[in-house]
Amino acid sequence: MHLMESTKTIGQLANMFADEEARQQMDQTQQVYRVQAHLPVAEGTTGGLFFGTTWIQPGTVGNEYFMTHGHFHQMADRAEYYWGLKGTGVLILMDEQRNGRAEYMYPGSLHYIPAYTAHRVANIGDDVLSFGACWPSDAGHDYEEIKDHGFSKRLIKREGVPTLENLK
Amino acid sequence: MHLMESTKTIGQLANMFADEEARQQMDQTQQVYRVQAHLPVAEGTTGGLFFGTTWIQPGTVGNEYFMTHGHFHQMADRAEYYWGLKGTGVLILMDEQRNGRAEYMYPGSLHYIPAYTAHRVANIGDDVLSFGACWPSDAGHDYEEIKDHGFSKRLIKREGVPTLENLK
Repeated sequence: MHLMESTKTIGQLANMFADEEARQQMDQTQQVYRVQAHLPVAEGTTGGLFFGTTWIQPGTVGNEYFMTHGHFHQMADRAEYYWGLKGTGVLILMDEQRNGRAEYMYPGSLHYIPAYTAHRVANIGDDVLSFGACWPSDAGHDYEEIKDHGFSKRLIKREGVPTLENLK
Repeated sequence: MHLMESTKTIGQLANMFADEEARQQMDQTQQVYRVQAHLPVAEGTTGGLFFGTTWIQPGTVGNEYFMTHGHFHQMADRAEYYWGLKGTGVLILMDEQRNGRAEYMYPGSLHYIPAYTAHRVANIGDDVLSFGACWPSDAGHDYEEIKDHGFSKRLIKREGVPTLENLK
């Protein structure tokens, strides 16, 4: 059994937020999110599962909420569950035709991320957001599409209100 | 999206507990456990997942703790996660060679049920036990082996103490 822990700081999230200049002016060591994953079998194992917990700090880069990288699965037909544990957030989803949608996350919320759907979470609250996750051990991660083209929608703070806007 | 709910009463659990006579003398309508499952795709879908919550009432049949039916998966290499939400219990596991073992469940506990492993949960507390579950949508359920031969170990209350005993 393997426990993986990963922390992402402002310095590690270049070109992810709309306002890259604002990001560069922030404390590069500031934590944005942390993931802990329970990996009981080897990555790629058919029929196995992985389990994770993610904590996203409250904050914004410019006027965009702190969020996770987001990804498609390498085996694109693999689904995933997220469920809200603490705090409030928004799950941003995008299909392969780049159609975007969002779901509100709160303690007790349950989210099915279907096949062929990229997923990312933003913290819209003033406290840490945490959520659980379960996904197949053969799903893998495909970060390329998101790295190259981002999500089709961004979650922006407009006069204090979370607003889902089309990517510019 | 389909939400499934299932309740098991004493009357529906014939021949599952060691003391069948004690079971027959109990109120047959008494609830033993309830399962709620979130089934966003069709059973059998490759790459999809299902999500469940189970509540087991406190109690015993004779001196054996209230517990779930338990099963192998039909696609026997499919794993599953359980995690404790409320109360205390014991996850009883058995491999295909009928080797048995157990894990203690409590709020925050995480349990990986590997491939080829039957699983059942007993409530050992005075309050309701609840736990979450996530499993592949193509796993299926195989109740036959358990129905015919039971688990190799039973959880018995001996002088108030949960004791794992070999099946007699």
